[in-house]
Amino acid sequence: MSTFREQAQELVSKMTFGEKMEQMRYDAPAIPRLGVPAYNWWNECLHGVARSGAATVFPQAIAMAAAFDRPMLYETAQAISDEARAKYNEYKTFGDTQIYQGLTYWSPNINIFRDPRWGRGHETYGEDPYLTATMGTAFVKGLQGEDGTYRKLDATLKHYAVHSGPEALRHEFDAKADQKDLYETYLYAFRYCVEHADPSAVMGAYNRTNGEACCASPTLLQKILREEFGFQGYVVSDCGAICDINNHHKLTANEAESAALAVKSGCDLNCGSAYVWLKTAAAAGLIDEETITEAVVRLFTARFRLGMFAKDCPYDNLSYDVVECEKHTKLNRQMAADGMVLLKNTGILPLNPAAAVAVIGPNADDRLVLLGNYNGTPSRYTTFLKGIQDASEGKVYYARGCHITNQKVGNWAEHPLREAVLAARRSDVVVMCMGLNALIEGEEGDAYNGDRSGDKADLELPNSQRELYEAVIETGKPVIFVNVSGSAMNLCRQSEECAAVIQCFYPGAEGGNALGDILYGKVNPSGRLPVTFYRSHKDLPDFEDYSMENRTYRYFKGKPLYPFGYGLSYTNFQVKSLTAERTEEGLSVSAAVANEGSLDGKFTLPLYLTRKDREGRDPLRWLVGYDKAFIRAGETLTFRIAIEEDILAMTGEDGVRSVKPGEYEILAGGFEENCMGRVKIRL
Amino acid sequence: MSTFREQAQELVSKMTFGEKMEQMRYDAPAIPRLGVPAYNWWNECLHGVARSGAATVFPQAIAMAAAFDRPMLYETAQAISDEARAKYNEYKTFGDTQIYQGLTYWSPNINIFRDPRWGRGHETYGEDPYLTATMGTAFVKGLQGEDGTYRKLDATLKHYAVHSGPEALRHEFDAKADQKDLYETYLYAFRYCVEHADPSAVMGAYNRTNGEACCASPTLLQKILREEFGFQGYVVSDCGAICDINNHHKLTANEAESAALAVKSGCDLNCGSAYVWLKTAAAAGLIDEETITEAVVRLFTARFRLGMFAKDCPYDNLSYDVVECEKHTKLNRQMAADGMVLLKNTGILPLNPAAAVAVIGPNADDRLVLLGNYNGTPSRYTTFLKGIQDASEGKVYYARGCHITNQKVGNWAEHPLREAVLAARRSDVVVMCMGLNALIEGEEGDAYNGDRSGDKADLELPNSQRELYEAVIETGKPVIFVNVSGSAMNLCRQSEECAAVIQCFYPGAEGGNALGDILYGKVNPSGRLPVTFYRSHKDLPDFEDYSMENRTYRYFKGKPLYPFGYGLSYTNFQVKSLTAERTEEGLSVSAAVANEGSLDGKFTLPLYLTRKDREGRDPLRWLVGYDKAFIRAGETLTFRIAIEEDILAMTGEDGVRSVKPGEYEILAGGFEENCMGRVKIRL
Repeated sequence: MSTFREQAQELVSKMTFGEKMEQMRYDAPAIPRLGVPAYNWWNECLHGVARSGAATVFPQAIAMAAAFDRPMLYETAQAISDEARAKYNEYKTFGDTQIYQGLTYWSPNINIFRDPRWGRGHETYGEDPYLTATMGTAFVKGLQGEDGTYRKLDATLKHYAVHSGPEALRHEFDAKADQKDLYETYLYAFRYCVEHADPSAVMGAYNRTNGEACCASPTLLQKILREEFGFQGYVVSDCGAICDINNHHKLTANEAESAALAVKSGCDLNCGSAYVWLKTAAAAGLIDEETITEAVVRLFTARFRLGMFAKDCPYDNLSYDVVECEKHTKLNRQMAADGMVLLKNTGILPLNPAAAVAVIGPNADDRLVLLGNYNGTPSRYTTFLKGIQDASEGKVYYARGCHITNQKVGNWAEHPLREAVLAARRSDVVVMCMGLNALIEGEEGDAYNGDRSGDKADLELPNSQRELYEAVIETGKPVIFVNVSGSAMNLCRQSEECAAVIQCFYPGAEGGNALGDILYGKVNPSGRLPVTFYRSHKDLPDFEDYSMENRTYRYFKGKPLYPFGYGLSYTNFQVKSLTAERTEEGLSVSAAVANEGSLDGKFTLPLYLTRKDREGRDPLRWLVGYDKAFIRAGETLTFRIAIEEDILAMTGEDGVRSVKPGEYEILAGGFEENCMGRVKIRL
Repeated sequence: MSTFREQAQELVSKMTFGEKMEQMRYDAPAIPRLGVPAYNWWNECLHGVARSGAATVFPQAIAMAAAFDRPMLYETAQAISDEARAKYNEYKTFGDTQIYQGLTYWSPNINIFRDPRWGRGHETYGEDPYLTATMGTAFVKGLQGEDGTYRKLDATLKHYAVHSGPEALRHEFDAKADQKDLYETYLYAFRYCVEHADPSAVMGAYNRTNGEACCASPTLLQKILREEFGFQGYVVSDCGAICDINNHHKLTANEAESAALAVKSGCDLNCGSAYVWLKTAAAAGLIDEETITEAVVRLFTARFRLGMFAKDCPYDNLSYDVVECEKHTKLNRQMAADGMVLLKNTGILPLNPAAAVAVIGPNADDRLVLLGNYNGTPSRYTTFLKGIQDASEGKVYYARGCHITNQKVGNWAEHPLREAVLAARRSDVVVMCMGLNALIEGEEGDAYNGDRSGDKADLELPNSQRELYEAVIETGKPVIFVNVSGSAMNLCRQSEECAAVIQCFYPGAEGGNALGDILYGKVNPSGRLPVTFYRSHKDLPDFEDYSMENRTYRYFKGKPLYPFGYGLSYTNFQVKSLTAERTEEGLSVSAAVANEGSLDGKFTLPLYLTRKDREGRDPLRWLVGYDKAFIRAGETLTFRIAIEEDILAMTGEDGVRSVKPGEYEILAGGFEENCMGRVKIRL
């Protein structure tokens, strides 16, 4: 039996040069004489099958990262790929696929959330390379399946590489990253995922990196991705990115030149219209058939491997009834609760079920805020308000309180502030559901935050919400502040004035139920911040500066409000002992953790490494391992975490990674004042 | 003890001329030295307290009219006024009121829904003067309360008069209505409500009527409203309408002239900024203090009568806990179900609870479509999808199927049609939730239907929905078509091709539960159309033509698809006997109605009058009475309906109404082929 590549080679060999070039478009036409149906390569499943109707909408990627739970993310990706396959099985009965109906998914987004102002940061797994790498690996594996022969879906790592805003400039921007930052931060997760998860595809970014357009970069695509990392799959352009090369980056004179440059640099598939010009490029001698053939063979290898031309693909039997099934809904609720991060608690949580609650804020009863972006359409939603109504046994008052932003509010508009004050006055406790939504922080072209194309100007709540906050705080009622955002916000005042603070990101269709579970103690919070919560954007470098200096918990020299990895529980976990020993594969760490409180709960144990004699631009500390487990009240559990040799390494100015000999310390649970245990180790 | 008017006179006598003029603004300032707090007159409660946060959101007015149930509308208005007072009691603790926090409500809208293209038609009680008059009366009475001394709220009849589009022209339009149409159609409900419900206020319309600006019309406001109808309350302008008099109607040179003309014509209160110019007008001698004083006395009489300066107003004790209380929610669900109109049923309804159902359409899971316009904010919603999910015992598939309109959909947008086909294929029956929403048909400045300012161009579904409909019908699955709109649509194809057709208007926060109740037979449908469903807008006169010729069931000579008053039941009602006798007050009609089917249900009995020797432009038939009652299966109930003398009258070309002697027939249940019984009567 021939390999998928051989099958692809044979099929492609029957195509004309012109037919081959047409197959490199994301909207590939049918070739009826060869039995090739039309196929649209574009599909999305960042946190559930997206843009294809009903689907289980899991929490946004950043929220799933906050759960710090690889097995659960893997299980979630399995659920997503089950739904994706089930949908595909139905769609293909039409004889072709339209957009968002195929098996080739342009997820996950493993860019580093370098700066909290980036509008698309909530699509990522946060600011840490190792967390991103391991989350990305779990997600890709869950999508692509474990069948020995066929691939369940194609996962696509994006956006390769060094891509994190500004959104307004993305089509023309040149990101400057030196070799150290490149390998230590921006490429780490790409390399790790290629090595550990064998992703089918990689998507090139819109921007330039160090002068080369990412979708047509010999350095990024050939030298690094294929030669250094050993990537075996196909490369797809971001949508319209190849036309940007001439239109905005001004590196070529026209679309034909851009298309030829991209293909020759290793970009096999084009989302957009640039590759329509490949025929022109070929006629002008800018591209040869051999290069084209190799690209098309890669693409058809993928299609064969997905079982598109087979009769024995086991995934063809997945039934549509898996879509939004009870099992997925239950998993979704669990993921949503585990991705919420308790930042402060004076003891008011878990709430007394009989308490009268005022639920206040523009995000309290909004369905869209649950969904983030790149989302599907749940056929059942639970807003925060609904979740609280269902969980509470007391009276629940609701007041929107203000418009989410203070734009376009005339004299004759509703003025909802006083109602919020009234609701607060009548209640024992106030739950404020505030923050942003994916129309405020999001992608250029999508987000309504018009003047900044989806990015944030700062870390502040919109003025309308600050006014509401003041008025509610003035009532003197205890406030549980639920910050709903995909990015770090300035919560300094809340951290001082509120009885409790919860960061809940965009928690998916079950978000309200999950918040209810957390507030009333049905679930003990276990989420941890996947990003640093700074006190102000003024503590940060310029947004356009891609140097990692003074960015993220690894390099930030200031005092954040809440550090990366921070997150509280309703119970009292203690690290009772911590040992580390060198192994051939890296380090083996044992940590005995006791639940000394009175509630059961999951404990997330992050491990950080720090070097005694830190040099130059090396990180202050970095995540080298993490695990999570359920520990009953009164019980002690020993975590055994294997730290990979690779993550012990540091990156030189030349980009080369190596383990630098010296004295190190492993910090368990947190760093600085949040460290729960430490052990020295010599590497 | 002095009357409220005397108290007002005394208070006003202490005001300076300038202070008085300031009190005629809707945003009246405080006069601290007289103990008068600031008061904002503008509030709305068309179908629930609106624009003031959480409230029970009842079905839109047109849906409540479809219930043909005066006692239930009265009860609904009582619920609304309870919530309104409860909110006011809280708001006034701030020492003043902001917009939408006072007791003076600018509801109901009793304009005649003359043409289905009018975007605001769903705010009205439909196309019939008697139905509108009686519904308006029940609503006003329920709002204003029955306390012997104090008024619970002020109700405001609007928009006086001859106001029904086009929205785009409303600030400059001159509606032409001859005396017959004026009194027979446009003014009937205003007169009836003034005579029967003593409304506190009347709002002048934006447009001119027969050359005079409605808010400054001596004919409408002085001669007709006050002198002929005996109206005792105050008149308020529509918002910005007085500036229109110079800016758009060009009847005056500037705001000062407009303001003076309006006050002198009888408009006591100004929504907008025109009356800021009253001081200028007074200085120029355009208006005298006596006229101003009378207006302000009227306004303060109302404020005293509302108990704003009293300590013994019984409504001050209404607690906030009445807002969205269980009793109101239950009433809301009942009203919503009773306002849905079954237009066709092959027998598929009520649905088998075990059937697999595909719920398809852009209105299926939309919360906003429940609310219509001039709405409050429910703290609990049930979308149609949710209502079906909760009511069904079988599998429920959901597919949005299309965008509600086909605007702004690019190549890269989601293409949801195929999913709908898949859902239909997998189901036993399809429920399509289609139609419009209040962003498509609505008010100028509010509605997003930009090119027509909220009006409809025709009666057709948007193209996107027609395409979806075709695709779903092609699957061959039985379709229950739920048309969600505030106005008549062309449902010709649906009436032929679908297994059932339901018109459900904008049914309020409990709309989904109500639809579930109807679909699964928990509630037997009893609603009736308050408007004619034409086959095409081409059957109608020009939209700008205000002549009633060939408009509404009273004058329309064509063949409608579904006539005014039409509506089916799941059971089989028969009129077994019908008698009518002349009384001093009009007519007394007896109708024995048997429920010969196997299901209990409410029966709506409309009575129409038709004159044997109809003359000239007299109506073909007109509603003269109606009642509604619950009749158990197998039982017979006798309706006794008193027909008022007034509605027997016909209107001459001079506008004078009189009972024309001759032979008449009373038609029970419907007219033409829908007539269930008839009796001759000589008047």
